[in-house]
Amino acid sequence: MIRVGIVGATGYGARELLRLLLAHPDAEVGAVTSESGAGQRLDELLPAFRGLIDLECRAFDAADLAERCDVVCISVPGAKSMAFGAALRKAGVRVVDLGPDFRLKDPALFAKYYKTEHTAPELLQEAVYGMIFQHREAIRTAQLVAVPGCYPLSAIAPLAPLLEHAIPTAPIVVDAISGISGAGRSLNDAFHFPEMNENLKAYKLAVHQHTPEIEQALDNRALVQFTAHVAPLTRGILTTITARLESIPSLRSVYACYEGEPFIRVLGEGVLPEAKYVRATNFCDFGWVKDDRTGNLIIVSAVDNLYGGTAGMAVQCLNLMFGLDECAGLVAGGMAP
Amino acid sequence: MIRVGIVGATGYGARELLRLLLAHPDAEVGAVTSESGAGQRLDELLPAFRGLIDLECRAFDAADLAERCDVVCISVPGAKSMAFGAALRKAGVRVVDLGPDFRLKDPALFAKYYKTEHTAPELLQEAVYGMIFQHREAIRTAQLVAVPGCYPLSAIAPLAPLLEHAIPTAPIVVDAISGISGAGRSLNDAFHFPEMNENLKAYKLAVHQHTPEIEQALDNRALVQFTAHVAPLTRGILTTITARLESIPSLRSVYACYEGEPFIRVLGEGVLPEAKYVRATNFCDFGWVKDDRTGNLIIVSAVDNLYGGTAGMAVQCLNLMFGLDECAGLVAGGMAP
Amino acid sequence: MIRVGIVGATGYGARELLRLLLAHPDAEVGAVTSESGAGQRLDELLPAFRGLIDLECRAFDAADLAERCDVVCISVPGAKSMAFGAALRKAGVRVVDLGPDFRLKDPALFAKYYKTEHTAPELLQEAVYGMIFQHREAIRTAQLVAVPGCYPLSAIAPLAPLLEHAIPTAPIVVDAISGISGAGRSLNDAFHFPEMNENLKAYKLAVHQHTPEIEQALDNRALVQFTAHVAPLTRGILTTITARLESIPSLRSVYACYEGEPFIRVLGEGVLPEAKYVRATNFCDFGWVKDDRTGNLIIVSAVDNLYGGTAGMAVQCLNLMFGLDECAGLVAGGMAP
Amino acid sequence: MIRVGIVGATGYGARELLRLLLAHPDAEVGAVTSESGAGQRLDELLPAFRGLIDLECRAFDAADLAERCDVVCISVPGAKSMAFGAALRKAGVRVVDLGPDFRLKDPALFAKYYKTEHTAPELLQEAVYGMIFQHREAIRTAQLVAVPGCYPLSAIAPLAPLLEHAIPTAPIVVDAISGISGAGRSLNDAFHFPEMNENLKAYKLAVHQHTPEIEQALDNRALVQFTAHVAPLTRGILTTITARLESIPSLRSVYACYEGEPFIRVLGEGVLPEAKYVRATNFCDFGWVKDDRTGNLIIVSAVDNLYGGTAGMAVQCLNLMFGLDECAGLVAGGMAP
Repeated sequence: MIRVGIVGATGYGARELLRLLLAHPDAEVGAVTSESGAGQRLDELLPAFRGLIDLECRAFDAADLAERCDVVCISVPGAKSMAFGAALRKAGVRVVDLGPDFRLKDPALFAKYYKTEHTAPELLQEAVYGMIFQHREAIRTAQLVAVPGCYPLSAIAPLAPLLEHAIPTAPIVVDAISGISGAGRSLNDAFHFPEMNENLKAYKLAVHQHTPEIEQALDNRALVQFTAHVAPLTRGILTTITARLESIPSLRSVYACYEGEPFIRVLGEGVLPEAKYVRATNFCDFGWVKDDRTGNLIIVSAVDNLYGGTAGMAVQCLNLMFGLDECAGLVAGGMAP
Repeated sequence: MIRVGIVGATGYGARELLRLLLAHPDAEVGAVTSESGAGQRLDELLPAFRGLIDLECRAFDAADLAERCDVVCISVPGAKSMAFGAALRKAGVRVVDLGPDFRLKDPALFAKYYKTEHTAPELLQEAVYGMIFQHREAIRTAQLVAVPGCYPLSAIAPLAPLLEHAIPTAPIVVDAISGISGAGRSLNDAFHFPEMNENLKAYKLAVHQHTPEIEQALDNRALVQFTAHVAPLTRGILTTITARLESIPSLRSVYACYEGEPFIRVLGEGVLPEAKYVRATNFCDFGWVKDDRTGNLIIVSAVDNLYGGTAGMAVQCLNLMFGLDECAGLVAGGMAP
Repeated sequence: MIRVGIVGATGYGARELLRLLLAHPDAEVGAVTSESGAGQRLDELLPAFRGLIDLECRAFDAADLAERCDVVCISVPGAKSMAFGAALRKAGVRVVDLGPDFRLKDPALFAKYYKTEHTAPELLQEAVYGMIFQHREAIRTAQLVAVPGCYPLSAIAPLAPLLEHAIPTAPIVVDAISGISGAGRSLNDAFHFPEMNENLKAYKLAVHQHTPEIEQALDNRALVQFTAHVAPLTRGILTTITARLESIPSLRSVYACYEGEPFIRVLGEGVLPEAKYVRATNFCDFGWVKDDRTGNLIIVSAVDNLYGGTAGMAVQCLNLMFGLDECAGLVAGGMAP
Repeated sequence: MIRVGIVGATGYGARELLRLLLAHPDAEVGAVTSESGAGQRLDELLPAFRGLIDLECRAFDAADLAERCDVVCISVPGAKSMAFGAALRKAGVRVVDLGPDFRLKDPALFAKYYKTEHTAPELLQEAVYGMIFQHREAIRTAQLVAVPGCYPLSAIAPLAPLLEHAIPTAPIVVDAISGISGAGRSLNDAFHFPEMNENLKAYKLAVHQHTPEIEQALDNRALVQFTAHVAPLTRGILTTITARLESIPSLRSVYACYEGEPFIRVLGEGVLPEAKYVRATNFCDFGWVKDDRTGNLIIVSAVDNLYGGTAGMAVQCLNLMFGLDECAGLVAGGMAP
């Protein structure tokens, strides 16, 4: 049994991680911290776990966590995990960060997109980006894993192999739609139920922080025009990628690399994913259409932003890091309906 | 590994059952049948299971199912399972019916509420009602289990122990609200998305078929005024029970019977359940308030109609029937959000 | 053109009132105040009105409003309008309060249910309760109108005539389901989109402040067991009333009083309303079922909590107060879908 | 009072048109036809209009409609209105078609995208495309108006003036998200509530019939890569347009053409529309961002697909055709919430 600590236990990513760990055959929750909830029982803060977890939220203490846990997952808002991560690494415990702080290699890009200086830039090179099909071997031995963002997963999975075989002739247009849980649990006028129900909006045009993360994971082979949208659902991301390429390679060949990849389902030409088919799963599904009239390739992908796009990737990384069955605690069909 | 067959594999109850069985450590899906989908791969009919189940839907054949499976679950609309159930029992295989056909002991009540004669009345006495806290021992050896309805679970769990200690002086008012998946997958003007989104309605007043099921499970100690409502969500039932009693007993004592019951969470006085805290779980949560002004007792309960209210109960019954850990494949915290 | 002022212009009731006044042939918005938005253009605060209203939000000033307006509508949270109302009455302007402060005649009941002393009890007798079919004549000349609550409308419309012809033998059970806009625009963990979407909950059992309002409007002919629920929609209330009566009178006769009532639609026996059929209208629809088995009468009613349940009633009162066509600005079919 | 007939009165576009005509000061509904509902009262078919419309649905009869009405609006599914339109024109009555049959000038394009031959190609040149800012004068005297599609409005409003001042260097990417009412009232597995709630999907990639409509209205100055998505809301379209241009002109100048246009709100740079701000209105709102990093221009627009995108445009056309105030029956602020 690996003992997993969670820093920031009441956020949405952490709640999903707790849910997965409760069902995990080889992992258990060793300790949880929460700034706002320190001293309270976790199942009072999170009634969904009533009777299931007998833990009290603690204040953050790196040494204490290092003693109680084999690995610590951090799930706090952007720009808040770098301090926790640095302290935990100093205390010698392995770290999996579900937030964005250790994803970008270039601290200047971090500063530009997150509007704050990175306080632990020395860890950026050590950190392994947790995009599993790209860095599976490095994750096994990593001391610090940066779990990818949910939007980036949906873009990188189809684009990374493609750009090894094709040259874009214009920035790749990535228009993604997300459920509201992706914005986290912090209250916000925009996401008050009556404001967001029956609403649609786009946000952070041209400045979304996932743009450099996607481009970095694509080895900067393409400029990415990433536009994020929100729609009135809780979970789910659907991403539509429109690419202009010098020529479109055989996509069956391109995506042969995913044979055996346990949580990527390549649906093929003309078969499109839907958010519901990956709901409550670790899958990233994608399919595509070639438009002969325009010459464009359009790829559509789907992930569950909280499961496959956050907590499930974290569990898969944990499994790799501790030599467990990579899929332990993760096999499940989509919850539809 | 017990081999479970599913008759009617594409309905909503069956989809959830498939999802649970895929994650079950000691059970596997042995065969699936579907009237409309016979001959097609199950994961083509249900893309949520792409890559996870390698089975073809068959036409119903009782002997074949009896050979391939240790137990067969039936998940078809009301009044359609009695024929399947009778054939399967004749073929000698144990049966778990997720539908209503074997719940009522009195065929006349069945005829009245389901508007059709029962075609296998001889099985009604053999059938064990799968309300686990009431019939746990009988379920272990049952050949035919009738899984309770989702609404009934939410009413019977709080009321059954109560009515052993209290005498109602008026019909008990049970007003329940359900998500739309409770109405099944059959297309219907009323449940076309634009018709039901942003809508609320009540239906089948005074004639809802779950009324006699609830009264029977309460040993007819009370008349029940059951009114069902639908609201624009997919999953979840919230049930508000208003009872006038000769006197209100100590509810802590009344509900002490649920200590150790793995999937009933008694929240206590003034603590109310919410649908989200039981979402994607097998739990039935309930709490209550006594209104000194009116003298009424008001109890509120919550279940996930597809999981705790259908497929989860079925799995719990399967576990009991085959001597497995009663909770196998079922422990999970609520998916919130 | 009557000039209408609005105090608290950014709340949900006020937004709907603004929307209705913009389309009103004989009324115009004379001035708007907002505590948080003073000094800002209204259409910057409320982008739905971009280009439609050329007004700046002011700080509250009773004398100024009395000069600029023929009548002032107050739309602020409970217990906050009594001070505004008193100041405006002192300044001599007619007042329509969309909030609850002037509804209850007994300041002790106000204190009990709103947890604060009433600061203008001398106005409670002057105030006319704006339940139009009950107080139409008094409203015409009223200086201060208290617009009824949305839940109360849905209960009082069917119950008031009934209780003139029938004697209840037990408290009347009123179980109502509301959309989230009824809870107002104040941020709240419970109504953050991912918390409330796919959720159902009951709240304020036995202590809901609309209980005494309903009972008062029924001349205390019945105790009311009012339980409020919320479901994941923005607008709409569906209310189910279960009554035990000494005997059930002819309801066609009972409700004959509503012939000619422009916004009450009596659907009749066995015909049930739905929230969608009154959406974006001023209607209150209701129908009923008699359950011979239990002896109960069950009535179901529907209103749009923001239109018919708040702003539409306010406009209808304004029309009466200023001798306009009572339906001016209000005729519209339900927005379905 | 102009008398308006409606062919196909129970569809979603027609319901919204009925709702608008009921509130119109200078128009009334003269007759309604419905294939499925002939012989029934309209307000029995559409309970939202109970008590508001005293009309019976008729079977279609062009001569009868021509006698009873000054103009007939057709609101039936694609490829079904051309026969009605031809018959009505032959009967000499003016026609406003809310469907797509008379929008494309080239019958070959119609056949390609609608998979059926056009049966009244001779009317295609006579038909005036009802994009008001493009064809206002022609609409005034038109005998046959083809109301634009909802998606096309959202794309053409921002793009038409732009492409008069800028040359695209790649196909323009138009990714639009729609509520489900856009798919009409026909039952469909995909839009059963539990299938579409909490879901996101893209559809008809590369073959969507609105593609040629948009390109035609842009005088074929650009290839358009149009991808349609659906999200779980009833009403609303949000469209994100990503354009690569030889150079980006001054957009303030480009859009100066919309000064005085009553239902187009140009929000400006960095100000983005939301579906809720145009809900239940005739507005098309749009704003934009220039991405210096990629060189792209990104425009986001919003319409209510049933009001501004269908029935509202139809009413605005009717107003023009009969010399009424162009905005009659149409001024309203967005219904938010």
